[in-house]
Amino acid sequence: MVVLCSQIIISRSKYDNIQARLCQNLPGHDGKHDEFPYLRDLAAQFPSVANKIRRDATMTTGAAWKSVEAGPNRILRWVMLLTDEELTPYGISMQNLKPQVVAKLREKAAAYEACMEVAKKLTWLVYQMKGAPTASEKVKSYLETYFGNIKEDSTRCLVCLESLSFDAFSRAMRGRAEIETGHMNPRYHNALNVGFAHRECNIAQGPKTLEEFYSWIGKIMERKKSI
Amino acid sequence: MVVLCSQIIISRSKYDNIQARLCQNLPGHDGKHDEFPYLRDLAAQFPSVANKIRRDATMTTGAAWKSVEAGPNRILRWVMLLTDEELTPYGISMQNLKPQVVAKLREKAAAYEACMEVAKKLTWLVYQMKGAPTASEKVKSYLETYFGNIKEDSTRCLVCLESLSFDAFSRAMRGRAEIETGHMNPRYHNALNVGFAHRECNIAQGPKTLEEFYSWIGKIMERKKSI
Repeated sequence: MVVLCSQIIISRSKYDNIQARLCQNLPGHDGKHDEFPYLRDLAAQFPSVANKIRRDATMTTGAAWKSVEAGPNRILRWVMLLTDEELTPYGISMQNLKPQVVAKLREKAAAYEACMEVAKKLTWLVYQMKGAPTASEKVKSYLETYFGNIKEDSTRCLVCLESLSFDAFSRAMRGRAEIETGHMNPRYHNALNVGFAHRECNIAQGPKTLEEFYSWIGKIMERKKSI
Repeated sequence: MVVLCSQIIISRSKYDNIQARLCQNLPGHDGKHDEFPYLRDLAAQFPSVANKIRRDATMTTGAAWKSVEAGPNRILRWVMLLTDEELTPYGISMQNLKPQVVAKLREKAAAYEACMEVAKKLTWLVYQMKGAPTASEKVKSYLETYFGNIKEDSTRCLVCLESLSFDAFSRAMRGRAEIETGHMNPRYHNALNVGFAHRECNIAQGPKTLEEFYSWIGKIMERKKSI
């Protein structure tokens, strides 16, 4: 396990008393305390990619439109670990949401530590995309401590296994990103389980685990031959 | 081509002056004029299945929640053939909708005649599902005129090619139907192109044509072997 500075960072969010945000620098670091120190280079050059990593790692996705019925469209994943009663003081009434919305939000709940590791894993994967910027020595060694050597052009779509290009982040289809954060098992949000996938591949996988997805498409191919 | 009674049926909808609803009985028929005469038996025994056929054949699906931004969640498919200006008097402001919502609605537009044939095709497919009720001789011969002999237990999911059971209509996942209307090519809503698919299969197909979908999963299987 990597030991971190872990100094509390006050974010002034109303959710701070549920879970303090912690400095993810190594102990005895230079400079300011920072929850995402390894994202600093990327944030300077490609802020939308850095924001996407932070957002996907730490926030649930709910409905496309926020409403009383549809629920919040984004909320911190660890907040969704609270019970319905514990959420009420925060203005979130899970009882008023449709059951499928509740299920979707609850499925995306994850502990703070898991979210922090997901952000690191996603950054490590971004730096291994075709055409990605080169990581500074400092960021490289930080990320490699967690996940091993960074190899150029080795990040593939979790689902279709095609090589992913860094510039796919800036292309968009119908206003939506072309690359999304995917999960080998959609029920668990943690570093082992997470990766990038084409938006269409992620949708196609749906609630299936990757294993279930491959078995499903294998059977379709067989049925197609035999009919 | 099948010749029909085609008597105008007043529906009192504000869209009647765009397209009159026409009796789909054969000429010289007994009883009332009816837009869906072949659905009468099904409507008596399984109203939700008959309603689904009528709805999927004639209505677009928009957003899950109706709102100014998200647009109408259901509208007659032939109404979506009108220009933005022609739609304004009906209280539909396409200019206020997000481009992806407009694209989705416009893609689902279809002529009245095409929608009528889709409803017939879907009914013909329902009667060929495992465990489906038996069609009356009258309904059977009406549908067979269009699409050929009704064969028991021969309706398969358009995408995964598994046999579909009639009782899947009454099962539901998270409040959603397990079976949806699917399209071999999602850009065309017509009898040749339409069928039933598992909800998950339909989502997995997404905007791909079936041909593109099968080629896509074939390549995934190859990549999986070679990696």
